Amino acid sequence: MNVEDMKKAVAKEALRYIEDDMVIGLGTGSTTAYFIQFLSEKIQKGELEEIYGVPTSYQAKILAMEYGVPVVSLDQVDAIDVAVDGADEVDPNLNLIKGRGAALTMEKIIEYRAGTFIVLVDETKLVDYLCQKMPVPIEVIPAAWKAILEELSIFNAEAELRMGKKKDGPVVTENGNFIIDAKFQRIEDPLDMEIELNTIPGVVENGIFADIADIVLVGTKEGVKKMER
Amino acid sequence: MNVEDMKKAVAKEALRYIEDDMVIGLGTGSTTAYFIQFLSEKIQKGELEEIYGVPTSYQAKILAMEYGVPVVSLDQVDAIDVAVDGADEVDPNLNLIKGRGAALTMEKIIEYRAGTFIVLVDETKLVDYLCQKMPVPIEVIPAAWKAILEELSIFNAEAELRMGKKKDGPVVTENGNFIIDAKFQRIEDPLDMEIELNTIPGVVENGIFADIADIVLVGTKEGVKKMER
Amino acid sequence: MNVEDMKKAVAKEALRYIEDDMVIGLGTGSTTAYFIQFLSEKIQKGELEEIYGVPTSYQAKILAMEYGVPVVSLDQVDAIDVAVDGADEVDPNLNLIKGRGAALTMEKIIEYRAGTFIVLVDETKLVDYLCQKMPVPIEVIPAAWKAILEELSIFNAEAELRMGKKKDGPVVTENGNFIIDAKFQRIEDPLDMEIELNTIPGVVENGIFADIADIVLVGTKEGVKKMER
Amino acid sequence: MNVEDMKKAVAKEALRYIEDDMVIGLGTGSTTAYFIQFLSEKIQKGELEEIYGVPTSYQAKILAMEYGVPVVSLDQVDAIDVAVDGADEVDPNLNLIKGRGAALTMEKIIEYRAGTFIVLVDETKLVDYLCQKMPVPIEVIPAAWKAILEELSIFNAEAELRMGKKKDGPVVTENGNFIIDAKFQRIEDPLDMEIELNTIPGVVENGIFADIADIVLVGTKEGVKKMER
Repeated sequence: MNVEDMKKAVAKEALRYIEDDMVIGLGTGSTTAYFIQFLSEKIQKGELEEIYGVPTSYQAKILAMEYGVPVVSLDQVDAIDVAVDGADEVDPNLNLIKGRGAALTMEKIIEYRAGTFIVLVDETKLVDYLCQKMPVPIEVIPAAWKAILEELSIFNAEAELRMGKKKDGPVVTENGNFIIDAKFQRIEDPLDMEIELNTIPGVVENGIFADIADIVLVGTKEGVKKMER
Repeated sequence: MNVEDMKKAVAKEALRYIEDDMVIGLGTGSTTAYFIQFLSEKIQKGELEEIYGVPTSYQAKILAMEYGVPVVSLDQVDAIDVAVDGADEVDPNLNLIKGRGAALTMEKIIEYRAGTFIVLVDETKLVDYLCQKMPVPIEVIPAAWKAILEELSIFNAEAELRMGKKKDGPVVTENGNFIIDAKFQRIEDPLDMEIELNTIPGVVENGIFADIADIVLVGTKEGVKKMER
Repeated sequence: MNVEDMKKAVAKEALRYIEDDMVIGLGTGSTTAYFIQFLSEKIQKGELEEIYGVPTSYQAKILAMEYGVPVVSLDQVDAIDVAVDGADEVDPNLNLIKGRGAALTMEKIIEYRAGTFIVLVDETKLVDYLCQKMPVPIEVIPAAWKAILEELSIFNAEAELRMGKKKDGPVVTENGNFIIDAKFQRIEDPLDMEIELNTIPGVVENGIFADIADIVLVGTKEGVKKMER
Repeated sequence: MNVEDMKKAVAKEALRYIEDDMVIGLGTGSTTAYFIQFLSEKIQKGELEEIYGVPTSYQAKILAMEYGVPVVSLDQVDAIDVAVDGADEVDPNLNLIKGRGAALTMEKIIEYRAGTFIVLVDETKLVDYLCQKMPVPIEVIPAAWKAILEELSIFNAEAELRMGKKKDGPVVTENGNFIIDAKFQRIEDPLDMEIELNTIPGVVENGIFADIADIVLVGTKEGVKKMER
């Protein structure tokens, strides 16, 4: 089973949590893309009815529209029943790092409010502690980028402003902000760090998702494994 | 002494904290406007040299340019020596509510980083506790406005989306976001509340400024009084 | 018949152009608000089915949601069948000035693409030529505001940056831009002027809507009159 | 002479147009980066005095700050004396295509207003007609992307929404908009096409720069050649 197959397997597994009349938070990234595709197939076959997706990004919205999954915005719904998204790192307590796709703020806005938040990853994303391999993406108000970059050195973080590849200069998020990628040594207390980063003036949101995930579906060579809180 | 005279008196008093070669955070609102005007006069007279202002809003920037105060952006300076701004409420411990002018995020970004943050108010702004008279303005990502509005009811807040007068629909901030004005009963622990509000996904920043002000200059009928931490 | 009655009368009349299965562009402002209300009543009664609204602003979106009119975004539809909106001025050839509500860019984006664009006004909005009473609102990239303000003097326009009332400093549009209100002497050729303004670098869109309106419904003391191209 | 050497050669040559007390528009991209570096060296040596740069993007601003070139914003200056920038294509009449770096709107805002606009390219950028090799980048309001994409087929353009590499989904510009890259067959009349594209509601600006460049400095294997209007 290669990585693409693992992604498909967890995306398929996630479908089991979806029922008629649900509002579903649609995550951003390649694994969630499979989920949107498979969700669409069930809808087309008539196996799922009255499904509405709330996209966490333009990528998710465009995909859902292409596949014919009806989309609505967060302010059009009363509640999110289930949210499905990928992650960059998952620790043993189901704390996450997210944000490689620069959609972390809208992802957290939606997934924090979901009745059940299901995370889809392959086994390479499992870590012993957060920041083992990946930096924490931090969304910041553009005017504050340099001040925050310097202040992150207090945390012993190697931090840098994320630069674009199809755009000169910094990546701009869908909220009009910048992303700082901060590689901390080792995050001992994810919830504490998540709050601490958010209290820095100029930080809009950060990629630590502590205590939010309910279920993590892990694609492994031996099949899909389930982690639960 | 009427209110305008009080504003002028505190603005004049604030000048005593300004020295040559300083970088000054320039607040938003009518009292700070006087400060910018008086600062300009001292610069024109040659009584102050090598002064640079870092505006907290377009209003402050436009005023500074009109008056000939050189302006730079936050990422162009190494540090803010002094910041000067108004407030909507000041409690006995120098905690503030700010944000009636919708510039709270950039104000906090700059004033939090100032060596000395001087607040200019008239005596009507002094309160026994925060939220005695004024609501807390909260800057939110537009897509999250409705969810956050509902969640604020947990805090027993009377909250509403701020609507424009020269623009149909919601006021839009200079960061492209909305403002929710939340009237809480009584804020017992401002720092705690400030952090709690900022941890709500979709909240960019809020108008509680706890433990940031160093000096409050209060315009009273008997003259300027000084509060200090 | 007072002005509110006229607004209601034209809003009612506009309903006659709406049929089942239509996608309707929902304008911004007080007259369109009545239209959204009446549209909702017909939908609730079952007299109209499969109606989707495409709002031109957050104001229109919030109203439509309150009244239970299903809303979708422009990129979710194949076409706009009918758009309904107000105007600040209407000349005898159905050219318009719009933008007092600061929503002109999204309004033009949607109304330009509507199969039929219906304008709702009371008779005080009828003028002999554009700019007889009202300025042309021009949406500009913030960094360019001062340069454009100066350049508009070439056109003999009295132009000013629109300032907020519930926000200090300039009004910010839902696209993150500023509005310049430019009072020209008399606009002889609206289409020509509309194009000329849009070619100024930094101008996003302007409030001249030439050759776009199909039908204008005018509320008068004697009842609703219809202008058509 | 390889491409990097050509870029350096034209950047050096451009310095000959810079004098004391000038305000200089600083373009975006790799060739202009050399210009900013060389400009800085002359300033450090004291060979140029009272130089202010007006950056066309965050990339240019960050570079200028790193190299110690004083930067101001467009609304802080009365005029731009000289602007220096690269281009993606240059036709024999000095018409340009720009925008590969997604900074086209601010570039045009500044360069259109420059007393002298100097373009720096290597010889691979010279074409017989615009769109010979490169598409025209078009900055659009996000909500309008799909409608505009479809409408561009009227022009026989192969158009696509530009996707990010360090951000999932569409690239976002520093104005919060999207970029559509439109490959037209052959642009016969650049000025006409530039205006026509800008009149499409939802188009903020496009990458055709007709009749704006004053001087093009071309890096060739035989040295720098100069094209002039």
